[in-house]
Amino acid sequence: MKRINFDHLACSPILSEAREAMMPFLADDMGNPLSWHIFGERSQEAVEEARQDVANLIHSRPEEIIFTSCGSEANNFAIKGVADSHEKKGKHIIASPIEHHSVIHPLKGLQKKGYDISWLKVDENGLVNPKEVRELIRKDTILITITSASNEIGTIEPIMEIGEIDREPGIVFHTDAVACAGSIPIDVKALNVDLLSLAGNVLYGPLGTGALYRRVGIRLSPLIAGGIQEKGLRAGTHNVAGIVGMGIAAKATLEKLSERQKHLTKLRGMLIKGVLEKIPNCFLTGHSEKRLPGHASFCIQYIEGEAMLFHLNMVGIAATSGSTCSSLALKVSHVLEAIGIEPMWAQGSLVFSLGIKNTQEDIAYFLDELPRIVEALRRISPMVAK
Amino acid sequence: MKRINFDHLACSPILSEAREAMMPFLADDMGNPLSWHIFGERSQEAVEEARQDVANLIHSRPEEIIFTSCGSEANNFAIKGVADSHEKKGKHIIASPIEHHSVIHPLKGLQKKGYDISWLKVDENGLVNPKEVRELIRKDTILITITSASNEIGTIEPIMEIGEIDREPGIVFHTDAVACAGSIPIDVKALNVDLLSLAGNVLYGPLGTGALYRRVGIRLSPLIAGGIQEKGLRAGTHNVAGIVGMGIAAKATLEKLSERQKHLTKLRGMLIKGVLEKIPNCFLTGHSEKRLPGHASFCIQYIEGEAMLFHLNMVGIAATSGSTCSSLALKVSHVLEAIGIEPMWAQGSLVFSLGIKNTQEDIAYFLDELPRIVEALRRISPMVAK
Repeated sequence: MKRINFDHLACSPILSEAREAMMPFLADDMGNPLSWHIFGERSQEAVEEARQDVANLIHSRPEEIIFTSCGSEANNFAIKGVADSHEKKGKHIIASPIEHHSVIHPLKGLQKKGYDISWLKVDENGLVNPKEVRELIRKDTILITITSASNEIGTIEPIMEIGEIDREPGIVFHTDAVACAGSIPIDVKALNVDLLSLAGNVLYGPLGTGALYRRVGIRLSPLIAGGIQEKGLRAGTHNVAGIVGMGIAAKATLEKLSERQKHLTKLRGMLIKGVLEKIPNCFLTGHSEKRLPGHASFCIQYIEGEAMLFHLNMVGIAATSGSTCSSLALKVSHVLEAIGIEPMWAQGSLVFSLGIKNTQEDIAYFLDELPRIVEALRRISPMVAK
Repeated sequence: MKRINFDHLACSPILSEAREAMMPFLADDMGNPLSWHIFGERSQEAVEEARQDVANLIHSRPEEIIFTSCGSEANNFAIKGVADSHEKKGKHIIASPIEHHSVIHPLKGLQKKGYDISWLKVDENGLVNPKEVRELIRKDTILITITSASNEIGTIEPIMEIGEIDREPGIVFHTDAVACAGSIPIDVKALNVDLLSLAGNVLYGPLGTGALYRRVGIRLSPLIAGGIQEKGLRAGTHNVAGIVGMGIAAKATLEKLSERQKHLTKLRGMLIKGVLEKIPNCFLTGHSEKRLPGHASFCIQYIEGEAMLFHLNMVGIAATSGSTCSSLALKVSHVLEAIGIEPMWAQGSLVFSLGIKNTQEDIAYFLDELPRIVEALRRISPMVAK
């Protein structure tokens, strides 16, 4: 049976070179990189090498990289860490409404504790307006958090323009770059961001790895406090093998970025064109050009995303509906709501994130299967006017 | 050259069966266990199997296990999660002063935010008195946190006696069982604890894995909020391979616990006897009997622990000084301070944690080397009265 992965933002296949590099660190004699002895030395070197590779990918300095256990940890760390360390300055935060759940949830938690969150407007494509960001800045603003690209609608936000806004040093600018780091170039200096979240798996590294870029000098309280790992900013034993795998994946991503972009953009074009041509009562969500190279997302009227996923799965195609991390949460996505899509349409959300191993044949197979599935589901849908 | 690991609490060698079990989950086609498709199914099954194995080790139900990225995350999660979810009930916490840094730091953070921490007294062996715990309980008490065993002095605390204290439902009892889970039996029902922290590596699983036991019904706010993983209590993509490795390690630990205990207790006895006989001006720290099977810790007068570690390392022996997670933090340990050891003695702290692969020959070799090292260092020590 065919097995086609169109859900790379949830799970990208690990690169063989990343897997190979991890193996020695799953051997018997490998130590805690913090320990002051022979068992720890090789691990420590390997963690620092990975730190350099991750830094290279985003054009930061290695000491600006803090390893975490996933992108969600990096996002929680950024939001809660800035709030805690800037409490005396103020409690005002500016955020986009189309952030990942791991940004939205901590923000809502802060809101309950008396923080004031200004939610930006987004246009029908999900774009934030840098001018609105500038206008919302107040004396007590401590944090601006805007995703680099939405995992759900693929729209790439104008982070560089927002970074250009003349903000005082006490205002921290964070961007969640989890969804885009594997397929578009990132330069933290050019973007002028202070914090940036990454996940290893989206770079074709192992699941359960991540990092937070923190510009030198930015105040940040640890989320996981305790040990002196990561300069006291993230306690806990390093997942040495995972970190090594993420480092190699970051290195490969940097080397192959333009090749990946070209490949993914081409396949994405085929997929979007095919779906819009073949499926009636269907539209693209997110921006048609300012979008992640491998990302295609739609609303398909009269049927439910979950039902389509089920049938796609039956023919070997993996995709998702709504936010990647809540694919089992059967509710209307906050992202689709923010871009003004009616609940009736939002239910029929389908999200595809393509990867380096996908082929034109995969797209063709999918474009054969989807219309049949949609037609069959619409035939039994109570929503269709018969 | 010899390579002898006497620092198992920092890093235990991963079991070959745990490593082997991880391999399929580092393969190309393995998915995010949350995704509703073929790529995720096998991962999901594997995570649930590991959850059952970890639950079996501590006699809990599988749904009471929340996977984390390390023991420090589990401790931070427990402390901050109870504080956040019980805020309305009160802000009083009872804690032992010999907790791991990943308990102490979050507690100190809460203290700054207006929480009232009652620090228990410990006797010269590091033992908490259950009677004192009972006396300190107030109407606004929300949390009692006491380590099951100190990683630094090896003392096993009377958790069962503390669990027997008649506490009202709003008081959560947490114990950090990271240091003891690999070598002593744990039964959360018998101990009557509500939360219990574990680390995978101390069970001879992979580095960078952990879990928090949460008794059904205990209110707890997530530390990493966002996705619906772990029933909404811990967002973030699962480290599937790591979780699988931890599960197998937990299974093996349960099966071999009495064998391990016997082996470790014997070696520990040899080590303690040998050190106390061969090294003048030296004493054991922690309880002589109520201590972790593989744990031996000493204060050696007139010289510094770090210097001894360096020289032990030169002859192939890995050990630590002070708390495992701060072996590079050159300050007097809060644990040694709490049991009343003078700073001059505390500087000469040495901590050994033995493991299943250590042999009598390892102990004999060490007992040959240590006296030479101590003698050489004392010869050049400015602290020795000459």
